Amino acid sequence: RVNSDRLWDSIMEMAKIGPGIAGGNNRQTVTDEDGEGRHLFKRWCEAAGLEMGLDEMGTMFARREGTDPSLPPVYVGSHLDTQPTGGKYDGVLGVLGGLEVVRSLNDLGIKTKHPIVVTNWTNEEGARFAPAMMASGVFAGVLDQADVYEHVDKDGKKFGEELERIGWKGSEKVGDRKIHAFFELHIEQGPILEDEGIDIGVVTHGQGLKWLQVTLTGKEAHTGSTPMPKRRNAGLGMARVIELVHEVAMDYQPDAVGAVGHMQVYPNSRNIIAGRTVFTIDIRSPEKEVLDTMDARVREGIDTICDALDIKYQIEQVGHFDPVTFDKGCVKAIRDAADRLGYTHRNIVSGAGHDACWINRVAPTAMVMCPCVDGLSHNEAEEITKEWAAAGADVLFHAVVETAVI
Amino acid sequence: RVNSDRLWDSIMEMAKIGPGIAGGNNRQTVTDEDGEGRHLFKRWCEAAGLEMGLDEMGTMFARREGTDPSLPPVYVGSHLDTQPTGGKYDGVLGVLGGLEVVRSLNDLGIKTKHPIVVTNWTNEEGARFAPAMMASGVFAGVLDQADVYEHVDKDGKKFGEELERIGWKGSEKVGDRKIHAFFELHIEQGPILEDEGIDIGVVTHGQGLKWLQVTLTGKEAHTGSTPMPKRRNAGLGMARVIELVHEVAMDYQPDAVGAVGHMQVYPNSRNIIAGRTVFTIDIRSPEKEVLDTMDARVREGIDTICDALDIKYQIEQVGHFDPVTFDKGCVKAIRDAADRLGYTHRNIVSGAGHDACWINRVAPTAMVMCPCVDGLSHNEAEEITKEWAAAGADVLFHAVVETAVI
Ligand SMILES: NC(=O)NCCC(=O)O
Ligand SMILES: NC(=O)NCCC(=O)O
Repeated sequence: RVNSDRLWDSIMEMAKIGPGIAGGNNRQTVTDEDGEGRHLFKRWCEAAGLEMGLDEMGTMFARREGTDPSLPPVYVGSHLDTQPTGGKYDGVLGVLGGLEVVRSLNDLGIKTKHPIVVTNWTNEEGARFAPAMMASGVFAGVLDQADVYEHVDKDGKKFGEELERIGWKGSEKVGDRKIHAFFELHIEQGPILEDEGIDIGVVTHGQGLKWLQVTLTGKEAHTGSTPMPKRRNAGLGMARVIELVHEVAMDYQPDAVGAVGHMQVYPNSRNIIAGRTVFTIDIRSPEKEVLDTMDARVREGIDTICDALDIKYQIEQVGHFDPVTFDKGCVKAIRDAADRLGYTHRNIVSGAGHDACWINRVAPTAMVMCPCVDGLSHNEAEEITKEWAAAGADVLFHAVVETAVI
Repeated sequence: RVNSDRLWDSIMEMAKIGPGIAGGNNRQTVTDEDGEGRHLFKRWCEAAGLEMGLDEMGTMFARREGTDPSLPPVYVGSHLDTQPTGGKYDGVLGVLGGLEVVRSLNDLGIKTKHPIVVTNWTNEEGARFAPAMMASGVFAGVLDQADVYEHVDKDGKKFGEELERIGWKGSEKVGDRKIHAFFELHIEQGPILEDEGIDIGVVTHGQGLKWLQVTLTGKEAHTGSTPMPKRRNAGLGMARVIELVHEVAMDYQPDAVGAVGHMQVYPNSRNIIAGRTVFTIDIRSPEKEVLDTMDARVREGIDTICDALDIKYQIEQVGHFDPVTFDKGCVKAIRDAADRLGYTHRNIVSGAGHDACWINRVAPTAMVMCPCVDGLSHNEAEEITKEWAAAGADVLFHAVVETAVI
């Protein structure tokens, strides 16, 4: 079993960097805080005897040599970036869980045949720069590096320039690594495991997602002196699309979810009818067919809504991945590890996207989940117990070591 | 008749201060640009031989002496502040129209019995700091000066401190002046006069208004992994309230309008269900009964919406005025002036709030309106013709001089 105190202490230490305002974290990707978090992780990796690689997307690869260095490594990790109002565990548990795997191997003096590489993927959250899982997406060849370098945040800053500015743009070409297998430990971010009192989620599938960024263009006008029939209200249009997304998701739930979390209103004045709104629709389903149907219904609905309000629209897909089926062998390694360790477990579908979803396209991949309090995530109040973290890391440890072979 | 070239040139000169991005203006109240605009107006007043007074709300009073200085002055003016994406005429036409009245009197060497005071009321727009018509509201004793000094903008800056910072907080106690009558010239900001091809709107009434600032509190959570029935979505709640406000206004139109132009979403991330939204409902009607009914229906509807979504709400009234009936004598002075000058005219109800609405409570007051292109206002594309401005200023000139007595 891993050293659960050490794992917990490291998580708490990392949480001191980029603290939030309500007990969580604001360590968004390629900010100064992200840079600081990376330095701390690097120091820990060096102290554990690992050798650090860094690619052009800023992804960190900390390698523990295998007895046969010519074998492709087993990768283990997640991400250290957070939402603007994120929790202490989302991503961090997976990276420091991976670090704990090699620390524990060091403690026990165990060598594995395959090297082991602990990974911190850049910009998993997609909060500051869309899309989510950006670096793993480029690694898997689904996203274009030159293109994502140009993606801008709300202040117009470019991802590529910010990565360089914080000093974490490496020289290694992205995606050139051969991966024997990839394992990611993550909090569930949903309520199932806690509700059922189960220790471990064996993640067999991941939901697919679409992010549709919508721009509505109406006409700025006075809220008081513009007669109702003369209005071209882009704010009302946004409201109707938000309701539409909710209705479509409700029609397919529990096999679907949908919401709008990001909204911008121009000029955003009390007595001006909004002339323009920009917002992002987030729709998901574990069934590709459902996801595609939702997408079509939402687009059709937007057309109808805008027609009725005499406003124009533009839809840009700023994120997309199809539902994922994880590798049977890796999934079995996780299930077997949970059995061996005596943890209760069940199969589970990931509601969120993860770096593992992209890496699964280029290497055998699976995920371990542990419960989180009230299923709450993307909230500073996100919480887990030390025991849940320990159980997840134990299972990760066994699955990784089993796959890397002693 | 006034010198319409001079009036137009002055408007264009003022428009150079705090230019917008699309031909209009961004000269929001108590910003550096507002300060600059005030300096220009002050220079013009001094050149016209007027004496400048400044009260603790920053309202400017430029006095032309009467032949009997003991008589209460006739006031004429409007405001120089603009929306963040405002037009060149909203407010400015009224202030510079007032200045043109005294300039024309100077040209003609005419003395009036009553002094004439040209006025620039602070923060009419209410865009940066709620409520609108702030300084005239304090002058009329409806708003509390100490209270509005504490009102904050989006960056948390206080009105009182910003007024002091730009150097335009005067020492004169607010509301102490005796006013013989007040006249305000303003663009219509609606489509009626242009549609009917009429030169002059004789404003007999003003719509009443309520601004209700609503805060909805749900729970931040992951858009992907939070099951639909577990959500407490403050963004969806806001969308439903926006639709509700629209429906209520549609039920009473053309005797009502309603919209939400101001919205803030927290934390505003693509994959976080909004935990909190803050937005302002703007409802108006020329009938007090209708306004009160709308207010009640909106509050009741918010309660129902929030109950269904398991979210909390708070409603704060951040602006309010009842419908206004302007002074019969002043209205007649305007109608007679239009007749005398041969301009076509009709009675009209102001859809927007104006400083005249507050001053009407403490002194005989009325307003002159001129058409604006397409009824468009609170938009940088706001436009009027030089002829429309001239006609409005001519009528203002005659009404003021008639009331101030030669
Ligand atoms: N795990 C996680 O929160 N990832 C962010 C991408 C997503 O929105 O699913
Ligand atoms: N005239 C004008 O636009 N005033 C601002 C206050 C309002 O919203 O009516």
